[in-house]
Amino acid sequence: MFTPRPIGFVSSPYKDTKEIPKGLGVKHAAVGVLKILPEFGPGLVDVEGFSHLFVIWEFDRSHDFDLTAHPPSDNRTHGVFATRSPRRPNPIGLTVVELLHRDGCEIHVRGVDMLDGTPILDLKPYLSSVPEEKLRRGWLAEAEARRRQT
Amino acid sequence: MFTPRPIGFVSSPYKDTKEIPKGLGVKHAAVGVLKILPEFGPGLVDVEGFSHLFVIWEFDRSHDFDLTAHPPSDNRTHGVFATRSPRRPNPIGLTVVELLHRDGCEIHVRGVDMLDGTPILDLKPYLSSVPEEKLRRGWLAEAEARRRQT
Repeated sequence: MFTPRPIGFVSSPYKDTKEIPKGLGVKHAAVGVLKILPEFGPGLVDVEGFSHLFVIWEFDRSHDFDLTAHPPSDNRTHGVFATRSPRRPNPIGLTVVELLHRDGCEIHVRGVDMLDGTPILDLKPYLSSVPEEKLRRGWLAEAEARRRQT
Repeated sequence: MFTPRPIGFVSSPYKDTKEIPKGLGVKHAAVGVLKILPEFGPGLVDVEGFSHLFVIWEFDRSHDFDLTAHPPSDNRTHGVFATRSPRRPNPIGLTVVELLHRDGCEIHVRGVDMLDGTPILDLKPYLSSVPEEKLRRGWLAEAEARRRQT
């Protein structure tokens, strides 16, 4: 397989995983900067035309993995691929951010949930959404329903 | 950085990139199977509760990269990070698929745009969408508008 290389690093207000908001109904509104390495700068032309980007990144402070996970939003365990746990066979994270503005190789965004210094692997334009009415959200919807009942 | 490993492979009707529908307004409706390796099977528990999944995969038949790309949906070039070009610094693909059903380690899905045999790196639940009215789609929207005028 390929050898991953960072195309840049996240500048985030979060220095420790404990600071990152987690759990049911959490909104990620933190502002941060995607600092892309100058050698990749020409790859950013026209990204600012998109309101949202997918950021693919490395869970660089996660080591090893588990096949089950116990997410903070539920008191039950689930398969790791049904969760966003950092302890995954390939420690790859995915975040949708809102693009605020681009200043050369620095992309200012809202919605970071990564730690400061996180290596960025890729950026992609967010082109379309699945309509909300077509979404089923499995154990997460069940956990939300249980919380409403208590 | 980490060393990527396949967690499974895509079974797709597409054997050659020329067969994959491309361009403006294309809909990916092809049905395929995400064949996850048995050793990772326990990680799939509860994925079937989600209607949609993110599939993160390797462009394994793409070699080297360019910082600009000429997408099939436009006659202009753009920075590679503003496109879905396979020729990226890290050859990582991202596809949102609709989950049809899971049969053990085989996840039947609609919406594959990968080649047959593509290595899968990760699966994640699709939890929420950006509302369509909040999306700006940069050069893609401009290319669509130009097409309508001609």
